[in-house]
Amino acid sequence: MNDFRIGIVGSRGIVAQELIHLLEQRNFSKDALFLFQRGDLHPKVFEGLDLVFFCSSNEVSRKYIPYASDALVIDSSSAFRSDPNVPLIIPEINADEMRNHKGVIASPNCTATLMLLAVAPLYRTFGIERLLVTTYQAASGGGKKLLSRLKEESTDLLQDRTPTSSLPYGFNLFLHESPDEEIKMVEESRKILKDPHLRMHATCVRVPVMRAHSMVVNVTFTEKTNVQTIETILASAPGITLHPNPTPAMASGKLDVYVGRIRTDPTFDNSFDFWIVGDQLLKGAALNALQIAIDNFKKFSVNGVL
Amino acid sequence: MNDFRIGIVGSRGIVAQELIHLLEQRNFSKDALFLFQRGDLHPKVFEGLDLVFFCSSNEVSRKYIPYASDALVIDSSSAFRSDPNVPLIIPEINADEMRNHKGVIASPNCTATLMLLAVAPLYRTFGIERLLVTTYQAASGGGKKLLSRLKEESTDLLQDRTPTSSLPYGFNLFLHESPDEEIKMVEESRKILKDPHLRMHATCVRVPVMRAHSMVVNVTFTEKTNVQTIETILASAPGITLHPNPTPAMASGKLDVYVGRIRTDPTFDNSFDFWIVGDQLLKGAALNALQIAIDNFKKFSVNGVL
Repeated sequence: MNDFRIGIVGSRGIVAQELIHLLEQRNFSKDALFLFQRGDLHPKVFEGLDLVFFCSSNEVSRKYIPYASDALVIDSSSAFRSDPNVPLIIPEINADEMRNHKGVIASPNCTATLMLLAVAPLYRTFGIERLLVTTYQAASGGGKKLLSRLKEESTDLLQDRTPTSSLPYGFNLFLHESPDEEIKMVEESRKILKDPHLRMHATCVRVPVMRAHSMVVNVTFTEKTNVQTIETILASAPGITLHPNPTPAMASGKLDVYVGRIRTDPTFDNSFDFWIVGDQLLKGAALNALQIAIDNFKKFSVNGVL
Repeated sequence: MNDFRIGIVGSRGIVAQELIHLLEQRNFSKDALFLFQRGDLHPKVFEGLDLVFFCSSNEVSRKYIPYASDALVIDSSSAFRSDPNVPLIIPEINADEMRNHKGVIASPNCTATLMLLAVAPLYRTFGIERLLVTTYQAASGGGKKLLSRLKEESTDLLQDRTPTSSLPYGFNLFLHESPDEEIKMVEESRKILKDPHLRMHATCVRVPVMRAHSMVVNVTFTEKTNVQTIETILASAPGITLHPNPTPAMASGKLDVYVGRIRTDPTFDNSFDFWIVGDQLLKGAALNALQIAIDNFKKFSVNGVL
């Protein structure tokens, strides 16, 4: 086990920091952990590593993952998520898909991951005709810079200083700054559910919350069901906790994703609403990447190294 | 004109303060303005007034509006909104409904008002099969107390003090604290559009924004249309400004309601999304109440007193 060496690329980033923390909690030896910032990277840097987590930009992933071909790479960027040769994995949902990986496994978009953890078991039981999602995404999803901006601009406003930002964030919200966020959510959900024609539509909004994403999901099922049956399925779904009114503050730092306020939508046959809240840095990113690694080595290669 | 006397009940409240400010901007004489707090109220307090704005609780409206029968009452509470004898008015949409008022005219729920300003012209042109709305509601919609709580708890968190609130609000969000908010939105929209069977469903969320409500509206129209036609209708609709990415910070203090990001929803025939942002204290409350008063006196009784 001491021979097992893990690299983390983008190690000062917000997701990598969570990943390091999760490894520490699992008593993984720090001596076997190799941390890389962008400036450290060169073609031979990954030699001797068994597993490399890429927690950096698409650009870094595209440029350096080819040099890590001796290790298993788990990529948290979106660089390879749509590549048909790269499994896109949420272990609770499609762990089997990673059986035939070619050295790289991608971890999905944070919001899609939190959503699918609740939606996939229902999709598999009832089928989905249409899925609408509206998000409330936290600052830390945009990295340290956006989180700092939220804190600074909030402080300014509380101390009656006028914000100078052209798109102020303190006590303000805005349509998600990435034009791809909504497309990613839809495309990645289709890949993970293996349903290229899934009718899904997303509106993504950045809210002045520090950590944990929330979303309203409205879903029309193919098969008839009811709130009680949905709750029963979700109560036994892995990684889900049912709660009547979960909030980002409650979900921050938690491994589970909270689902609450499951209601009938009376405006259309067989339609329901859910309120989903989860830590986008944990299950939405670092925890999911770590679970992929654990599951892969447990199920498909060496025994329980992590 | 100096003979025209206006009372404002709940005058230290957040909506009344906005109303007083709007009256001042219109050069209405302060000498003719009579301000009442709850402790000032008794059965004869409204004698000699021509117009009374109730900007207080349902309880105060229910108890004291009967004593103001010599004046026109414009009620911003929800006490009488569902009363078939009380017109529920957004002047741009249904000013004619107040022609036969019986002394009391109600101003609708703030979120419903902002939404309908954009939705009503489209409803009248194309008909609506189904309307889903998901809100991002500001603290000031919950009055001075909730706004103070947001500021205090945000300050605490920025200074690394642990929040003590059981439902923290600083950098947090939660399902709307009033269980009736979503029902109000639906029932009041049905009354204003005179469509008791309108298929509409709402999810209301309180976000850590100080002022101005935002919402995502997903609508399926009865008649076929397209984004360009919708934009053309909204561009000429009263009280609406089209903008690609409106935010609460931008909409705060503004009289118009902003509509942006009008998109086709490809998951269902003839379905579209809008992003609506408006100042819930102005068009959502004080401005709408003032417009009701102006329209009523201009169209239906004395000439242009306001």
